[in-house]
Amino acid sequence: MSNTLGKLFTITSFGESHGQLVGVIIDGCPAGLAIDQADIQPELDRRKPGTSRLVTPRQEEDQVQILSGVFDGHTTGAPICLAIGNQDADSTAYEKARQLPRPGQADYTAYVKYGGYNDYRGGGRFSGRITAGFVMAGAVARKLLAGIGVEVLAHTVEIGGIQAAPKAIDEIKAMAANEVHCADAVAAEKMIAAVAAAGKEGDSLGGVIEGLALGLPVGLGEPVFDAIDAELAKALFAIPAVKGVEFGAGFAAARLKGSHNNDPFAVENGKIITTTNNAGGILGGISNGMPLVVRVAVKPTASIAREQKTVDIGKMQEANLAIKGRHDACIVPRAVVVVEAMIAVTLCDLAMRAGLIAGVVR
Amino acid sequence: MSNTLGKLFTITSFGESHGQLVGVIIDGCPAGLAIDQADIQPELDRRKPGTSRLVTPRQEEDQVQILSGVFDGHTTGAPICLAIGNQDADSTAYEKARQLPRPGQADYTAYVKYGGYNDYRGGGRFSGRITAGFVMAGAVARKLLAGIGVEVLAHTVEIGGIQAAPKAIDEIKAMAANEVHCADAVAAEKMIAAVAAAGKEGDSLGGVIEGLALGLPVGLGEPVFDAIDAELAKALFAIPAVKGVEFGAGFAAARLKGSHNNDPFAVENGKIITTTNNAGGILGGISNGMPLVVRVAVKPTASIAREQKTVDIGKMQEANLAIKGRHDACIVPRAVVVVEAMIAVTLCDLAMRAGLIAGVVR
Amino acid sequence: MSNTLGKLFTITSFGESHGQLVGVIIDGCPAGLAIDQADIQPELDRRKPGTSRLVTPRQEEDQVQILSGVFDGHTTGAPICLAIGNQDADSTAYEKARQLPRPGQADYTAYVKYGGYNDYRGGGRFSGRITAGFVMAGAVARKLLAGIGVEVLAHTVEIGGIQAAPKAIDEIKAMAANEVHCADAVAAEKMIAAVAAAGKEGDSLGGVIEGLALGLPVGLGEPVFDAIDAELAKALFAIPAVKGVEFGAGFAAARLKGSHNNDPFAVENGKIITTTNNAGGILGGISNGMPLVVRVAVKPTASIAREQKTVDIGKMQEANLAIKGRHDACIVPRAVVVVEAMIAVTLCDLAMRAGLIAGVVR
Amino acid sequence: MSNTLGKLFTITSFGESHGQLVGVIIDGCPAGLAIDQADIQPELDRRKPGTSRLVTPRQEEDQVQILSGVFDGHTTGAPICLAIGNQDADSTAYEKARQLPRPGQADYTAYVKYGGYNDYRGGGRFSGRITAGFVMAGAVARKLLAGIGVEVLAHTVEIGGIQAAPKAIDEIKAMAANEVHCADAVAAEKMIAAVAAAGKEGDSLGGVIEGLALGLPVGLGEPVFDAIDAELAKALFAIPAVKGVEFGAGFAAARLKGSHNNDPFAVENGKIITTTNNAGGILGGISNGMPLVVRVAVKPTASIAREQKTVDIGKMQEANLAIKGRHDACIVPRAVVVVEAMIAVTLCDLAMRAGLIAGVVR
Repeated sequence: MSNTLGKLFTITSFGESHGQLVGVIIDGCPAGLAIDQADIQPELDRRKPGTSRLVTPRQEEDQVQILSGVFDGHTTGAPICLAIGNQDADSTAYEKARQLPRPGQADYTAYVKYGGYNDYRGGGRFSGRITAGFVMAGAVARKLLAGIGVEVLAHTVEIGGIQAAPKAIDEIKAMAANEVHCADAVAAEKMIAAVAAAGKEGDSLGGVIEGLALGLPVGLGEPVFDAIDAELAKALFAIPAVKGVEFGAGFAAARLKGSHNNDPFAVENGKIITTTNNAGGILGGISNGMPLVVRVAVKPTASIAREQKTVDIGKMQEANLAIKGRHDACIVPRAVVVVEAMIAVTLCDLAMRAGLIAGVVR
Repeated sequence: MSNTLGKLFTITSFGESHGQLVGVIIDGCPAGLAIDQADIQPELDRRKPGTSRLVTPRQEEDQVQILSGVFDGHTTGAPICLAIGNQDADSTAYEKARQLPRPGQADYTAYVKYGGYNDYRGGGRFSGRITAGFVMAGAVARKLLAGIGVEVLAHTVEIGGIQAAPKAIDEIKAMAANEVHCADAVAAEKMIAAVAAAGKEGDSLGGVIEGLALGLPVGLGEPVFDAIDAELAKALFAIPAVKGVEFGAGFAAARLKGSHNNDPFAVENGKIITTTNNAGGILGGISNGMPLVVRVAVKPTASIAREQKTVDIGKMQEANLAIKGRHDACIVPRAVVVVEAMIAVTLCDLAMRAGLIAGVVR
Repeated sequence: MSNTLGKLFTITSFGESHGQLVGVIIDGCPAGLAIDQADIQPELDRRKPGTSRLVTPRQEEDQVQILSGVFDGHTTGAPICLAIGNQDADSTAYEKARQLPRPGQADYTAYVKYGGYNDYRGGGRFSGRITAGFVMAGAVARKLLAGIGVEVLAHTVEIGGIQAAPKAIDEIKAMAANEVHCADAVAAEKMIAAVAAAGKEGDSLGGVIEGLALGLPVGLGEPVFDAIDAELAKALFAIPAVKGVEFGAGFAAARLKGSHNNDPFAVENGKIITTTNNAGGILGGISNGMPLVVRVAVKPTASIAREQKTVDIGKMQEANLAIKGRHDACIVPRAVVVVEAMIAVTLCDLAMRAGLIAGVVR
Repeated sequence: MSNTLGKLFTITSFGESHGQLVGVIIDGCPAGLAIDQADIQPELDRRKPGTSRLVTPRQEEDQVQILSGVFDGHTTGAPICLAIGNQDADSTAYEKARQLPRPGQADYTAYVKYGGYNDYRGGGRFSGRITAGFVMAGAVARKLLAGIGVEVLAHTVEIGGIQAAPKAIDEIKAMAANEVHCADAVAAEKMIAAVAAAGKEGDSLGGVIEGLALGLPVGLGEPVFDAIDAELAKALFAIPAVKGVEFGAGFAAARLKGSHNNDPFAVENGKIITTTNNAGGILGGISNGMPLVVRVAVKPTASIAREQKTVDIGKMQEANLAIKGRHDACIVPRAVVVVEAMIAVTLCDLAMRAGLIAGVVR
């Protein structure tokens, strides 16, 4: 396994779905950043289960504990350990289905890779629950980024094939709260209905989340191999269920001509800008000062109530499986804050590497 | 900058478009692998400029030199330095346009990040020419992978919106040579015509390349943060012009229901397989033994002859720019072997980390 | 800060002297290793305070908690979080002396580096107490090494200038327990008396610890920069108070002639050995199959009761300081197990990198 | 193998003793540093063979070639490739002795680790010749450090048991040139005579080099695991023949009482200093603003003309060996500049990590 990400601002993820806790260690955070539970808890609450009709009824308090690295309300320069406990873990269903790997899940690959020793309860280390650690780290990263004028946000642009109408950044920033975190209120209603319908059928839906980083200076990203897009993609693919990542026009750029895809430069208020943003704020792996735009494809939840075909790995016989656990019919809404967190953590690391965030917050 | 990739099998890229050479250092390659120029040159020749009507007329021999790490025809365990010289570099056009950053290129971001000290000739470090180093490393990685039964290949599936018909893996492996490396001969003809037409208009086209890894054992990938998809995406985004990466069904998976997207397990010849492959060979960031499938969106070549709008960064005034250099109207065909190389290098590293490739080839 | 060590078998240290806990995360440990508290607690007990006349009377239970990565008594391949709580922390003395950096401690450098935000209580992150995390990780590493026939041990060879007589490895392995962990019982008595005397004077003593690794195969170490001696030295200098590290004949080798220092090769029981071991088991940064011998210089405890000269950093005036906390007059005895732990952790990482320890313990 | 060192300012070493070249790639060097051959060549000349009676008569021009990363006389932010060719390599002696590992050399361990595929000619990758790459990188690092007022120097303090009298830093900086780079002219003469005598006997001598870094700000070093002493020790043990590293009072500190070893703080010219420097400029793994003092034990040259006992590894029989190659009777004088280089490279990396050296030199 490899559970540490980043070079100067690093996060180390630990914990399992049905173990004692899920946590993260942030190393390299500058000293002097004011941090308390109130900075982290709201972010955690955004991904918490049991908060809406659409998501798993598993009840968890998910109260952040700050276990090290913070003293007198400020970071000390020491590693920051943040954790939440696991309370409502019900492993019954998993014990029964031990020999029946769930399609679309890591049960089978983890079983082979770890010689059958993997903690299979609730998906163990492969559960979406570990992203709570990402979110806690993201909350710290966002606060650091705010100090240099960078803001990270994400929103749902598609669920079950229902696409939100394109919105201006100001509209996205000002969007009204809804269960799917979609800036297009009309599409949001349709998405909510579609998720509910899929759930009733014992099925699930996927979707697309768009992440934005605003206020980025020119110069983030360390080409060739630690380009801003390369580092972001790596971090985003660590989120379970992500199957695609694209920047700016992304796959659509492959269908444009160069004369249309190239973003012309212009001068605006004494600053160099581009008049379009097909590049998604990135040129040559380096931020260009325009909004960074990334889209993430999230597959439909693998755990569904409908009967599926699998194999009994003890008997090496095909078998049927109907999953009884508690699962979201669509994890896209809860993944929005996770996408934000991974973007924030990555940008924080690159900002430190570019010397834009120093060792002490002053 | 950050020009080293990988953990056990690492590659360090160096060189510039119009400098003395372009090269790569491979560190961590097991000792005892038989390697000579004939293993590397054919791969280099596949990306060489000047070989077809479709690509830049820049003439380069691109003869690989093995400068260290190989003795008596075998790798020694020491770092392997491979390089090609730059011969036909013509910097004239670049000198003139020094103050006029080319839209869609790294000129502007590199200028800001490196305080104007970046080597701007031919794009310098941001030129596609540096991928020759990737290809040389890829040739070594492929030979190592062959030793454990893994084969990597790539092909063009789309150019300028023209999509190839889906082909079976056997057809792709057996595809006839064509200028665009597309397994669908009919689509290939259309693609070739489209590229030629775009070139005549002083414009350019992008496309989509699909990469495949066959024969992978179950267990490659180091979740959470060094998952096989995360590591591949990072490596692929290091290729200039890549704007999107997706695995298996990718963005299309976001529109499927779970019951359709999940790949059912089955037993075939005593082995566990999945009967579909929407996952693209990856579950939980670990290879599952099915063909690994990744698609890469390549934007249209940024350097086009047509006049474009830019800014004179000395005068901070808007200006027009018509690029005179020698450029491919579509780099997709030449990028196919680069995609293969980055996949091979990444899989090699993960195979070593999983203990599947040892310190000595025996 | 940089609190992660290792490449494949990595440890991430966290926690402070007077915070809630001190812990470690082990990442990369193979799955299937049987681990429970009984494997770790005895090691922790060897460095526990309050166990002898010679050491600090601070009372801590130091009961290991296994918080993640172990399921059904075996490692799962997931990150292993181990921690002990802090219970008997008394910060009174530190609050008073906040402005008076203690000579020989990190108070001053941490104050400057972290802008005054460092947790100064009990030395915070710079306390010897964080080595409890090293010891917990060491216990796991030792168990893995035992699986490939490698044993790590350490013993005190000098305290306050009193040198132990050289002992054969068998004697060291069989040494009777004494408060200073010295294999020479006569010297041990003198050392104990010297430490007690120094403590009474409000002073402190240092010493030298010798570490041994037995049963190492030929081939550990990744030259040039991750040579076995380079990696061990880095790990050992992370132990507070270590001021020197030498291998084999070490500094004495600098005074020998080549004809005496070179270890002749010979054949013994069909194996190649050296008839002397001035190299300390290392040639060219690679283990040569002989016992690995490393010696570590430990400075006298910096915190002493005697009055010392310091500077009031608020007033920038010289001042006197008499430290009231509870401190060991000599930390050498408690550091013995820490030296063992850092050797074990480092060898484990190198053994995994050499492919000698695989991803699953079978 | 692992041939890359550092985190932000990294060096990748490549090449062999009798291959085509020996080189280094520096990655992460800020853009805008003025660099040409004249900055590097004098450093290389200091370690060049054939320059004195005392050292190997191998004749090499060792002319530095700047192959990438420098344009118009300044670094560009791209990786800098520096290399020297190998010209006077004579492999005859090595071919004969292929089966007879030289005592004290890496022949045996490399043979086992790399399955016999290692390049044995001249020690191959384990030759002291690869330190030419370190020296080239060191020259760049020194120039960067000079920009923040840091100076690195080293001098011989002991050869063959002959110790130099302690000298003040000003005396060391102003020392007259002599063949052993010793600041004590009287001891230097004795050392030179001792080396000559040992050479005549077909034997060799070792010694101790002291390295100094002056002008360091408070705050370099990233505790716990990347402490300044930990990082320096790792880098210094990468130099062939180094068997011990100590800081400040080092092993002697183990014999002092705390009241003597602790360096009292005082105020001098409005700055906090220590009135002694037993700590060698390091507290808690962080530079404290005093001169950094490190001593390195160098073993006597392993290759000696005298007959030695070894084993024929083909026949597994004991054998005698008299080494015919060209070897230094004492490498200490040539290692002085290598010690400086490794200190400079390490401090440069830590200075960048602490934000003291930015991405562009202005």
